[in-house]
Amino acid sequence: MSAAPSASRSVATRILGLDPGLRITGFGLVDQLGSQLRYVASGCIKTQDGELPGRLKTLLDGVREVIATYRPDVVAVEKVFVNVNPQSTLLLGQARGAVICGAVSCELPVAEYTALQVKQSVVGYGKAAKEQVQHMVQRLLALDASPGPDAADALACAICHAHGAQGLGGLAGAGTRRRAGRILA
Amino acid sequence: MSAAPSASRSVATRILGLDPGLRITGFGLVDQLGSQLRYVASGCIKTQDGELPGRLKTLLDGVREVIATYRPDVVAVEKVFVNVNPQSTLLLGQARGAVICGAVSCELPVAEYTALQVKQSVVGYGKAAKEQVQHMVQRLLALDASPGPDAADALACAICHAHGAQGLGGLAGAGTRRRAGRILA
Repeated sequence: MSAAPSASRSVATRILGLDPGLRITGFGLVDQLGSQLRYVASGCIKTQDGELPGRLKTLLDGVREVIATYRPDVVAVEKVFVNVNPQSTLLLGQARGAVICGAVSCELPVAEYTALQVKQSVVGYGKAAKEQVQHMVQRLLALDASPGPDAADALACAICHAHGAQGLGGLAGAGTRRRAGRILA
Repeated sequence: MSAAPSASRSVATRILGLDPGLRITGFGLVDQLGSQLRYVASGCIKTQDGELPGRLKTLLDGVREVIATYRPDVVAVEKVFVNVNPQSTLLLGQARGAVICGAVSCELPVAEYTALQVKQSVVGYGKAAKEQVQHMVQRLLALDASPGPDAADALACAICHAHGAQGLGGLAGAGTRRRAGRILA
């Protein structure tokens, strides 16, 4: 596109965080300028019940539409838990594959973070509850209200990438330890 | 494209069969004209070790390239087994998601078949060995040599779709029973 970026956009990095799910995929965008984080947008892509290929297309097209609208520089995707139910694990894997394809088909770099890494980075505790994540995301981004749980997880993933990208020197990220735990890519 | 299709292409349906895998995804194309099947092409898309997003992009771009080259009318994708290892299941799911995204991003309809359905249709026995599938694919398509195992599975999936689409009336498909078994989508 030929539109000139605004002054703040010219030096900020725009991060798109994604929390993949077959039924609901959360997305959240933040601009990072040094140790400053600014909320841009968030929401979720929902798929209806039906044949799997059509649902994957909804996720693929949805991610591509978010990227076309907000033009992020990098994408951070949450790694997913292995479910006790193998069929659920397989379905979630396929959804995550479609979400990542949405990003790589737009030629964007994709970073991956486990839920433990995201929670450590945002809350300082790897086993934090969903409500704590929502609360800290609201606080770190100075939002008027708490984002929904799916959007909050996506924004938390974007924040985790911002913290990692600046060497964990700012905000709540200092001293974060990265552990793999039982989470699988 | 403006190139006129050949006489046989004008009434035949071209089916792209896909056997998804993260390391190797097999593909095979057959033209169906009534009960006649004609081999078009087959091969596989391979990914190198490395970060998952790059590997998924290789699969996505590879499927899109096959579609751009051979312009199939429909895609038939094999459903995958749930592995005993949950991490393997998750990786395979992500690869399958990328392969299906390659098809749906080209606006092609995607049909899904379990390995049991494919083997029933091609060999007449749902638990047939890989070698039997290769042998029957070679015979049904009148090939000079046996295709490789990944290409054979993909061609078998395309043949299964052709049999299903003509009501199992032709070739080796008559009387095939469809069972779901333990295979998951």
